[in-house]
Amino acid sequence: MIETPYLLFLGDAPDMLAAKVAIGIRDWRPDHALGQIRLPGCGADLGLKDLTLAEAQAAGAKTLVIGVANRGGVISQAWKEVLIEALEMGYDLASGLHNLLRDEGDLVAAAQTYGGTLHDVRVPTVGYPIANGVKRSGKRCLAVGTDCSVGKMYTAMAMERDMVARGMKATFRATGQTGILITGHGVPLDAVVADFMAGSIEYLTPDNEDDHWDLIEGQGSLFHVSYSGVTMALIHGGQPDALILCHEPTRAHMRGLPDYTLPSLERLRDTALPLAQVANPACQVVGVSVNTQHMSEADAKAYLTEVEANLGLPATDPYRFGSDKLVDALAAM
Amino acid sequence: MIETPYLLFLGDAPDMLAAKVAIGIRDWRPDHALGQIRLPGCGADLGLKDLTLAEAQAAGAKTLVIGVANRGGVISQAWKEVLIEALEMGYDLASGLHNLLRDEGDLVAAAQTYGGTLHDVRVPTVGYPIANGVKRSGKRCLAVGTDCSVGKMYTAMAMERDMVARGMKATFRATGQTGILITGHGVPLDAVVADFMAGSIEYLTPDNEDDHWDLIEGQGSLFHVSYSGVTMALIHGGQPDALILCHEPTRAHMRGLPDYTLPSLERLRDTALPLAQVANPACQVVGVSVNTQHMSEADAKAYLTEVEANLGLPATDPYRFGSDKLVDALAAM
Repeated sequence: MIETPYLLFLGDAPDMLAAKVAIGIRDWRPDHALGQIRLPGCGADLGLKDLTLAEAQAAGAKTLVIGVANRGGVISQAWKEVLIEALEMGYDLASGLHNLLRDEGDLVAAAQTYGGTLHDVRVPTVGYPIANGVKRSGKRCLAVGTDCSVGKMYTAMAMERDMVARGMKATFRATGQTGILITGHGVPLDAVVADFMAGSIEYLTPDNEDDHWDLIEGQGSLFHVSYSGVTMALIHGGQPDALILCHEPTRAHMRGLPDYTLPSLERLRDTALPLAQVANPACQVVGVSVNTQHMSEADAKAYLTEVEANLGLPATDPYRFGSDKLVDALAAM
Repeated sequence: MIETPYLLFLGDAPDMLAAKVAIGIRDWRPDHALGQIRLPGCGADLGLKDLTLAEAQAAGAKTLVIGVANRGGVISQAWKEVLIEALEMGYDLASGLHNLLRDEGDLVAAAQTYGGTLHDVRVPTVGYPIANGVKRSGKRCLAVGTDCSVGKMYTAMAMERDMVARGMKATFRATGQTGILITGHGVPLDAVVADFMAGSIEYLTPDNEDDHWDLIEGQGSLFHVSYSGVTMALIHGGQPDALILCHEPTRAHMRGLPDYTLPSLERLRDTALPLAQVANPACQVVGVSVNTQHMSEADAKAYLTEVEANLGLPATDPYRFGSDKLVDALAAM
């Protein structure tokens, strides 16, 4: 559990693309984002207040979150001055970088001296159990994709926001670094040891009230040969009641796999549902989330209409057109 | 790579069941098993020569293999005397125990002093790549099960032996602790970090001669919710040309999951094959391996006849009736 609220460290991010994590926190947990702190030459701006460490602390900030993904993966000396000063002032640090905070001797020394915590969200900190498959109370929704990076996290985040706005009980359950930094907790599933993957998802989505929905962040794809095992563990560990099919229609091949084409939404449905029903015989496919960012609005709407006709399921782009149709489908269950 | 031949340490194993690893080595790699060494009270006997450390070393033994799985998982003080003496004499040690050799200070000290290697086969020692899905040369066969522990390793081992006897090019590829100790190398898949599972299997089964078969040791089951992600990674990382369906007909429920019934062989076929064809469109289901140990010979034969009629595939119990039918199926491809 990462303590909130956050001050978002953008460092010397060359552009907004590098600030993906910080943007996610600003968009999905605005109450956690007190302000931003930038170094000279920073090309990213979240539109938040630029605060010094002291100003943010006076406003209540508990954790300095490294909201920037630098290509080299190195924690530079320019960053170190701010990070160490933050630890000296009593901040915790949180990071999803490959270069772990805990591998930096000066950060470890400062954290030990001043009592701060270094959160490396890439590394599991819990000894997860082996999955036992016992049916849990409460309801669970999982987004599954025709490919990696088709909008599964975004879909779950948008649904959580809209469900909470409607007064429904809903919790986004993070399974990746960005999601964990946004919400402050979760399971870094891609770093969990094979035997404990499904168990880590059971741990993440425990018994709950009968009308509560966990919105589980999807990972990988059953059709992506590099990561399909991770997806499989999510489907069986999550024992979802509802599946949302996610797709990006303009992609020419599976992400990073030039020899592999994407499956159709029908094939994804027919593959994922029987597998999900192993863990939860009542599971249903309830809707489709399409990432239409590379389509005109007219093309996007035409595509969604076609999907609805072909699959007989509500379809939307939750970013562009809202997630109401998907939330309606859950509410109707 | 664990150096052979082995001296098999049975310790104070209460019975033969506890000596499963040693039995596997004796049965499948008899040339590796120079002899056994037992402590007072040992209730297991492999029928091998009882050798002292000195006698075995004189006969060429390189590694003392802990061939016993003790329930508590602890390396007892009674064992330590033999293990340390072996290191002093220049042996390596190999173990698949949860209690790692490397976590025992006195063993580490002796290994460092005398230059021996401690092989803990539960722990990956290679930085595996992320799977790239590129089609590899050579052929691969994977056993998939309706459940865990239905005879997948045994099937692959039996096929390897019979293929080599026929002059075919075949290599058993171990993916679990017992298989690794038997053959001296492999991937401890259940201990590999999620993102690298499929890549570890690509690493294990590289490009090979066109008429060479890798017989990949299966793990888990697509229908076992605790471990299905591991099975999925094997199917996509292994990109098999041939699948063998494995089943144990008398089991009342999935192993360790009392609320889950086993799927039919037809359902396993219809689930596994389309998933395998994602990575290898030419993949076929070529045969069925039935573990008939709890059936009379008449019942076993009747069951196999029924399976052959229902599935239109050759079916055998490779332990009881030989693996010829399965090898014939591979040879015909």
